[in-house]
Amino acid sequence: MSTYTAINLAQRPVPGPIRSDTFEVVKKETPKVGPGQFLVKQTYMSLDPAMIGWMSSDTKSYIPPVVLGDVMRSSGLGEIVESNHPDFHVGERVMGLMGWTEYFLSSGPGLNKVQAGLDPTMVLSVFALPGITAMQGLYGVAKPKAGETIVVSGAAGSVGSIVGQLAKADGLTVIGVAGNAEKCHWIVDDLGFDGAINYKTDDISAKLAELAPDGVDIYFENTGGAIQKHIFEAMNAHGRIAVCGMIADYGTDSPSAGPNWIPIIKKRLSIQGFTMPDHYAEIPGLITKLTPYVMQGKIKHRAHILDGLESAIDGLNLLLTGGNNGKLIVKL
Amino acid sequence: MSTYTAINLAQRPVPGPIRSDTFEVVKKETPKVGPGQFLVKQTYMSLDPAMIGWMSSDTKSYIPPVVLGDVMRSSGLGEIVESNHPDFHVGERVMGLMGWTEYFLSSGPGLNKVQAGLDPTMVLSVFALPGITAMQGLYGVAKPKAGETIVVSGAAGSVGSIVGQLAKADGLTVIGVAGNAEKCHWIVDDLGFDGAINYKTDDISAKLAELAPDGVDIYFENTGGAIQKHIFEAMNAHGRIAVCGMIADYGTDSPSAGPNWIPIIKKRLSIQGFTMPDHYAEIPGLITKLTPYVMQGKIKHRAHILDGLESAIDGLNLLLTGGNNGKLIVKL
Repeated sequence: MSTYTAINLAQRPVPGPIRSDTFEVVKKETPKVGPGQFLVKQTYMSLDPAMIGWMSSDTKSYIPPVVLGDVMRSSGLGEIVESNHPDFHVGERVMGLMGWTEYFLSSGPGLNKVQAGLDPTMVLSVFALPGITAMQGLYGVAKPKAGETIVVSGAAGSVGSIVGQLAKADGLTVIGVAGNAEKCHWIVDDLGFDGAINYKTDDISAKLAELAPDGVDIYFENTGGAIQKHIFEAMNAHGRIAVCGMIADYGTDSPSAGPNWIPIIKKRLSIQGFTMPDHYAEIPGLITKLTPYVMQGKIKHRAHILDGLESAIDGLNLLLTGGNNGKLIVKL
Repeated sequence: MSTYTAINLAQRPVPGPIRSDTFEVVKKETPKVGPGQFLVKQTYMSLDPAMIGWMSSDTKSYIPPVVLGDVMRSSGLGEIVESNHPDFHVGERVMGLMGWTEYFLSSGPGLNKVQAGLDPTMVLSVFALPGITAMQGLYGVAKPKAGETIVVSGAAGSVGSIVGQLAKADGLTVIGVAGNAEKCHWIVDDLGFDGAINYKTDDISAKLAELAPDGVDIYFENTGGAIQKHIFEAMNAHGRIAVCGMIADYGTDSPSAGPNWIPIIKKRLSIQGFTMPDHYAEIPGLITKLTPYVMQGKIKHRAHILDGLESAIDGLNLLLTGGNNGKLIVKL
C-alpha cells in the first residue's frame, strides 16, 4: 500500500519566528480515485504572506483559519496522474488551493487548468495570487493615473514587484521600498522602478523627499512597520492607500501603532483594505487584463525555489524576515 | 464717520486652549458701497470645529490658512442694509463666509440668499455646513443600508446629531458617543438614537459590545481621541469609516496614535476623509436631498447661543472641550 507525505497545522503560531512544532509531518495512504474524481501530484507549492494570517485563530478574518490537525492551506501547481473525471485528463496541469501535500484528490471545484507551455514559476509568480492581487489592488483600489507618484512597500516581493511594473508601464513614477541593497538594485536596474528606498539603511524621510519631491499620490502597502508613518506623511491631497499586507506586523506580539488620522481629513485620503476572496468572480477579468502586460515583456519575475515539501515550514520565516529573493516557491 | 468691529487673526494658535491674544479686536471704517456692491449686517455667526484647522499654518490642508492680520474666517447669516447690486436687495438675508465682522461688503460671489421664514438658528444649524457635511459624509462616503449599525462620535455635535438622525430615519441602528450625561440623554430621548456611550464615564468596549452585539458597519468619526481604537476594533467586515473631524486631537501637542492597520486588511475596511470644499458643486443637490427629512420633522436641532462678536474668541474653546450644548452660534 503506497503512502505520501503531507504537513498538518498542529498548533497556532506564537509571536516570533515560526517554529517547526507548529506543524506535523504525516504519512497518508494514497487514496483510491472514485467516480468523477482525479488525483493530482503536486509539483510546485506557493508560499505567500497571507498564509501567516490563515494559521491564526482570528475567526473574524476574511477566510476561516486553517483547522488544527488539517493540512496546511496553500496554493500550488500539479499534474493529473490518475482520473475518472470526464473533463480533467491525465497529464494535464492544474492550479489551486491543494495545501501542503504531495498528492491531492479532487472532483474539480477550486482547481483551474494551466495553459501548456507556461513555466511553472511564471504561473505561480505572476498568473496566480501575486498577479491577481496586484491587479485588484492597483486598478480596483488605487486607480492610478499617468503622471502620478506611487510608493510600493515590499517592492521586491511577489505582489509589490508586479504592482511597480504595472504602474511603470502605465506612466507613473514608481518608488519601491525594500529591505536590502540587492533588492533595491533589482527593482531599479532590472524592473525599471524610478527609485528605491532601503528601509533598513536609508533615512526614509530624506530619501522619500528626494525621490518624490512633489509628494505621493498612491501608497501600495504590503508590509506595515516603521516605514508606514513616513510614507503616510508624504501623501498628497486625494491620495489613495491600498492596504494589501502588513507582514512586518503579523509575527509581532504588539503590532505597531498606526498614524494619527488628522491627515486623512486634511488631505481627504482614502484607505482601503482588500483581499482576493472577495473578488473571486473578477479573477478571469483580472487575468485577461494582466496578460498583455506579461506578453509584452513588461512584467519580469524571479523565483526563490526551496526544495522538498518539508522546506515549506522554515520557508515561512523567509517571508517574515524578507529573506527571500523573489517569489517563494517550494519544488516537490 | 461710522465704524464697526471686526476680529483679526493675530497669531497662530499654540497647543492648549485658545488664548485671547490669538486674535485682535479692531475698529474699521464702514465702507462706501460701490457700483454692483452691497453691504451686509451680520446677525448670526457660526462657530465650527473646522475653524481650528483654518487658523493653523498647515499649507497642505484643504483650504489655505487664514492669513495673519486678516479677519478670522467663519460662516454666518446677515441682512442686506445697503445695495447697489441688481440681484441683492435691502432687507434680504444672505449666508456665506463673512468672517468675524459686524459688516461685510460684497459683490455677490460666495453669498447665497436665505429663504424667508426660516429661523436663523435652523439655517446655521441644519441648512449650512453641519447639514451638508452630514449629508456628504453619510451618503457620499459611508453609504448606509437599512439594518446596519452606525456609531457616530461627537454625536451631540452639530454634524453628529444630524448624521445620527438621518441614519435613524433610514432604518439603521444608531449609537452615539458624547461627553456628558445630558448629551447622552438628549440624543437618545429627544433625537431617537438607539443608544449612547458617555466616553468620559462608560467602559467604552463593554458598552459598545452591549449596544452593538453584532459589530459596527459604519463609523462616522467627528472627534478622534481615545474612543477611536475601541470603535475601530468593533468594525465588521466591509465596514466604512467616514473621517469628518478629529477635534479631540486638534488642540494637542502630540496627537494620539491611530490603530494598527492589520484589521483594515482582515476586514477589508474603507476609511475616507472628506471636507466640503471638495464638494461645493454638490451642495445644491445635498440641500435638496436634506430638505424632506427636515420638513418631515426628522431632524431636530438645538443651538447654543453666545452673545456679541467678541464672545466668539472664547467660544472656540467650547468646541475643544465639548462644553457647548448644541450648535454653537454667536448672535451679533
